[in-house]
Amino acid sequence: MAPTQDALVVFMPSGKRGRFAIGTPVLQAARKLGVDIDSVCGGRGICGRCQVLVAEGEFMKLGVKSEASHLTAFGEVERRYAERKGLAEGRRLSCSTRVQGDVVIDVPPDSQVHKQVVRKRAEMRAIELDPVVTLHYVEVAEPNMHDPSGDLQRLEQALASQWDLKGLDTDLRVIQHLQKALRQGNWTATVAVHQKKQITAVWPGFHDRAFGLAVDIGSTTIAGHLCDLATGEVVASSGMMNPQIRFGEDLMSRVSYVMMNPGGDVEMTKAVRTALNELAENVAKEAGIEKTNILEVTFVGNPIMHHLLLGIDPTELGGAPFALATDGPITIWASEIDLQVHPNARIFVLPCIAGHVGADTAGVILSESPHMSAEMTLIVDVGTNAEIVLGNRDRLLAASSPTGPAFEGAQISGGQRAAPGAIERVRIDPETLEPRFKVIGSDKWSNEPGFAEDTAQTGVTGICGSGIIEALAEMYLAGIINQDGVIDGAMAARSPRIQAEGRTFSYLLREGEPTIRITQNDVRAIQLAKAALYAGARLLMDKLGIDKPERITLAGAFGSHIDVKYAMILGMIPDCDLAKVTSAGNAAGTGARIALLNLKSRDEIARVVKQVEKVETAVEPMFQQHFVEAMAIPHKTASHENLSKVVTLPPPKEVAAGAEGEARRARRRRG
Amino acid sequence: MAPTQDALVVFMPSGKRGRFAIGTPVLQAARKLGVDIDSVCGGRGICGRCQVLVAEGEFMKLGVKSEASHLTAFGEVERRYAERKGLAEGRRLSCSTRVQGDVVIDVPPDSQVHKQVVRKRAEMRAIELDPVVTLHYVEVAEPNMHDPSGDLQRLEQALASQWDLKGLDTDLRVIQHLQKALRQGNWTATVAVHQKKQITAVWPGFHDRAFGLAVDIGSTTIAGHLCDLATGEVVASSGMMNPQIRFGEDLMSRVSYVMMNPGGDVEMTKAVRTALNELAENVAKEAGIEKTNILEVTFVGNPIMHHLLLGIDPTELGGAPFALATDGPITIWASEIDLQVHPNARIFVLPCIAGHVGADTAGVILSESPHMSAEMTLIVDVGTNAEIVLGNRDRLLAASSPTGPAFEGAQISGGQRAAPGAIERVRIDPETLEPRFKVIGSDKWSNEPGFAEDTAQTGVTGICGSGIIEALAEMYLAGIINQDGVIDGAMAARSPRIQAEGRTFSYLLREGEPTIRITQNDVRAIQLAKAALYAGARLLMDKLGIDKPERITLAGAFGSHIDVKYAMILGMIPDCDLAKVTSAGNAAGTGARIALLNLKSRDEIARVVKQVEKVETAVEPMFQQHFVEAMAIPHKTASHENLSKVVTLPPPKEVAAGAEGEARRARRRRG
Repeated sequence: MAPTQDALVVFMPSGKRGRFAIGTPVLQAARKLGVDIDSVCGGRGICGRCQVLVAEGEFMKLGVKSEASHLTAFGEVERRYAERKGLAEGRRLSCSTRVQGDVVIDVPPDSQVHKQVVRKRAEMRAIELDPVVTLHYVEVAEPNMHDPSGDLQRLEQALASQWDLKGLDTDLRVIQHLQKALRQGNWTATVAVHQKKQITAVWPGFHDRAFGLAVDIGSTTIAGHLCDLATGEVVASSGMMNPQIRFGEDLMSRVSYVMMNPGGDVEMTKAVRTALNELAENVAKEAGIEKTNILEVTFVGNPIMHHLLLGIDPTELGGAPFALATDGPITIWASEIDLQVHPNARIFVLPCIAGHVGADTAGVILSESPHMSAEMTLIVDVGTNAEIVLGNRDRLLAASSPTGPAFEGAQISGGQRAAPGAIERVRIDPETLEPRFKVIGSDKWSNEPGFAEDTAQTGVTGICGSGIIEALAEMYLAGIINQDGVIDGAMAARSPRIQAEGRTFSYLLREGEPTIRITQNDVRAIQLAKAALYAGARLLMDKLGIDKPERITLAGAFGSHIDVKYAMILGMIPDCDLAKVTSAGNAAGTGARIALLNLKSRDEIARVVKQVEKVETAVEPMFQQHFVEAMAIPHKTASHENLSKVVTLPPPKEVAAGAEGEARRARRRRG
Repeated sequence: MAPTQDALVVFMPSGKRGRFAIGTPVLQAARKLGVDIDSVCGGRGICGRCQVLVAEGEFMKLGVKSEASHLTAFGEVERRYAERKGLAEGRRLSCSTRVQGDVVIDVPPDSQVHKQVVRKRAEMRAIELDPVVTLHYVEVAEPNMHDPSGDLQRLEQALASQWDLKGLDTDLRVIQHLQKALRQGNWTATVAVHQKKQITAVWPGFHDRAFGLAVDIGSTTIAGHLCDLATGEVVASSGMMNPQIRFGEDLMSRVSYVMMNPGGDVEMTKAVRTALNELAENVAKEAGIEKTNILEVTFVGNPIMHHLLLGIDPTELGGAPFALATDGPITIWASEIDLQVHPNARIFVLPCIAGHVGADTAGVILSESPHMSAEMTLIVDVGTNAEIVLGNRDRLLAASSPTGPAFEGAQISGGQRAAPGAIERVRIDPETLEPRFKVIGSDKWSNEPGFAEDTAQTGVTGICGSGIIEALAEMYLAGIINQDGVIDGAMAARSPRIQAEGRTFSYLLREGEPTIRITQNDVRAIQLAKAALYAGARLLMDKLGIDKPERITLAGAFGSHIDVKYAMILGMIPDCDLAKVTSAGNAAGTGARIALLNLKSRDEIARVVKQVEKVETAVEPMFQQHFVEAMAIPHKTASHENLSKVVTLPPPKEVAAGAEGEARRARRRRG
């Protein structure tokens, strides 16, 4: 056909353009040009995924005068689709609309396969959809005695000719149910193809429900997000306690349980898998879908959770040299871990990095992407162990530091987990030394009207990690504790809240039932934890030859509750421009979600994890010295250039009489 | 090093040669030259697989004066191996022997990986070993806190550096047990690698037991051969009844069972899998090995057995258009079909060809290799259906013909399965019309002394397929039945064995308990069966434009019991040089064994099966006419050029009075 008879078609936003014969379906033109338009039904006007709009007007730059009338009129197929599912004003099904003249076509984001999923935090890179599982509607030839062939082979031919998918393998379970599906669908079926390589599911006729589940298995809680694989949207979320808690509160006590109880690993594996089935049940119910429509599940978790999920005895992780069974990513069937979603659903488990740095940290890296940034970024994920990642696109280091459970409220006299009733914010008047606080479940300060009513239900039950950090930082700013963490008994003269307890002092935060004090032991426990955290970060900074990071990200549930300023006052983290210190929330879970929605990210994280330089703090000679120096508040030697811009730090002082001996002992210990 | 200081090493029988520095281990020299020498231990003097001999003397053609002293003296490693496992005179471990001067090295067949497995029948191509599973002993680096890495990754590194095996995947079940295995083996292990791609098993330390099981699942019997994967030798064999018989004697009655009983397919799948576990148990016990050392299993079977094994409902195979679920080969885990061998053992199921032509026929093709021959070869595998393959390296056709169960003794008045007590050979004196016969379980003819003693235990219980074929052929040669299969009542005057039964006649083969007669109905049943078989072959000959095949192979248990001359007299098969008509025994089972031992054969059979032209006799218009003409004995129209050279066929005759009406009716039916 002569070029003059062809129409110019320009697709936006890609700007891809080409000339096509009058009568060419718009979707076909798009496919020829490699324009990203979605379709499950393959151009049969069933799925409605390929919607486009006409951009009307004279586009000088493009050299096109585009009119709605340059497409065929709204036809029968579109009318039927609109009746069934609705079609917004101006929207056309590109498969069922033909080019009649020059036209500019807008492909809205929801019609693109590789659309971007919006993330709440603006500074983060968007998640681009790159589907792991794709759905393909096919019309399959009926069997013919004159040219006999298997049903599977005719399905493969249909996928090759209608979708250009070739050389696929097929799960046995698909073959087992294929014949019924094809006949029920009257020789039409929808096929799920995993990684463009493997047929994992077949449904009769048209089917466009495909979901994925991203799961973060924490030692304490398990959190799952059910995502629509076509849109990337989270359609349901659910969290639950990790039932392994009954075998031990923290990781090491669970490993001990395995060591002391033969078969204990099997029990714990069973427990977590049962919980995961419950989780899948819950999210499916919440979203109103069948569990069998979950075709893909991704997991992150620390090394011990990772091993127990996969049925690997975690004993080796309980002692030096802390060898992982594997530090590679794992792709298996859901049935291999007894997960009752679609039996052929694939499980992708992100790789662990080292014996103490797990797949959760891999998820954090994927989410925060320090490996793609020029900025020297420090990421800390605080739990019983703190996982620490430092680096940028040139080098990336990871370590784990034994902070112990103090940040989670354990080993603290009035400590508790973050739960309604827990004190999470603390302010101390530097003049009167009087405190006020907020508890989880109420927005009000304790000295505001309505606080009592708000907390009547829960009570004030204790102090959680973020509360204790603020309490200590405020005590430091008010001079109640000095740079060495010693509660200054001399202050008892100024406030009845400073009270002697044997040879040391404590600060009365709240009178009542229960009475909540910050004792000298509490301060010590937090000092030890924060010194370990800081020392780990410092060790990685040494390795990279830097003095301070350009950006700090606090990951994890705890990280998202901390006020970063207080974390810096206390010296948990190195000095940094406070504007560049942020909380990332459950970044590990976000990493699981990225791996769920973006196929390329799986190779990416496997590659990055291989390149990460693993640092084992336990064998680093400098760790101990860094630890000792980091006991001071904020730090014995490090500069506080950025922090000093926003907070006036008190001058060093020696503590007075009552607690003197204790303070001296403390100094000796550190020397 | 200057070439003059190097030694010339020539390996026989390959003739590969090269110069190597003095001190080079012989195995290393062989590897450099690509000489095929086996090793599991990778050159550590443990496995003894790499044995060689020195060929001493002056080899003019090779330009080498080879002496035993041109290798290092028998050393410590060899001495230890010899003490442990024995080492024949002159044998050296090539891994532990170093080149000292020019030498000719003989690599005996048992040291070659790609050795040939001897087959009993000389005319068949040898099975070349091309291992699907290989074993590799490795020394694995211990974990190191200064450079943390997973145990699996260090195992992978060991396989890469010690065996040049890279980019392997690993079964989850291997990872689950990897850490214990490595520590038990003190950081040595033996790894099973499937198809050079996947780690499927790991044992602590050195392990060189790897076995495979080749199974032929027949409707009636299941036969399995346990093979040593290193030598290809059959180390144990076992046969058993197919327990599905309780759901129906023949294939169609089993499909009917499924149609009438929902879940019947599941029951039958369970039954056959249970039997297979018993079979695996039996052969393992017979060979004195653990079942978990079975790492590979191959299966052949007809389409219905194939589907039921794999858990596929066979209903579609019960009626037109007889669509297979798949006609591709299948590779799965043993655990996917509940087979309790090594859980990661791989199952390879040969491909089915068409709805009536199964993986058993694929096995027959692999065994008999018509696709590699210039000779136009006809292969028939006779059962309830006869599978027929015709062709050569240019074209290959396959069909199935509905012979019914007459050849198996069903529908025959005195018929029975081939079992002790069944008449299997029959001769009739053309003068006296007196018969003699042999029964299964005795070598004596019924008129020989000792026959009564031999058969006292079993009795004479009936007549099996090969017996009825000989009986009919002999009756025809003696003039008892004519070319139309009509028993000639006029012969009753010559012998009391010809007896009237209503309007037809029968031949009394044996008086006693039970009395065994060949009735007119029996003759008709066999005529129908043999006509179907012949017509199928004729149809394929038509398609290839040939008049007779150059070679005929009778496959299957029945085929190996038939005297091919009688089969030709009766007209079951086309005329052919009798010297080229042979029985192949259980060729399907041999095909399973080839697929077990030779990796390349799997691609080969998949490719051949795709290329085979499938002929569905039911829709071929000429089939009916061929069938009618083939009712005559040997055939109404075909020439018997070759047969006539060895047997004098009686002239055509019209039958006399008594059975006249019957004969006329028969003719009308056929017209």
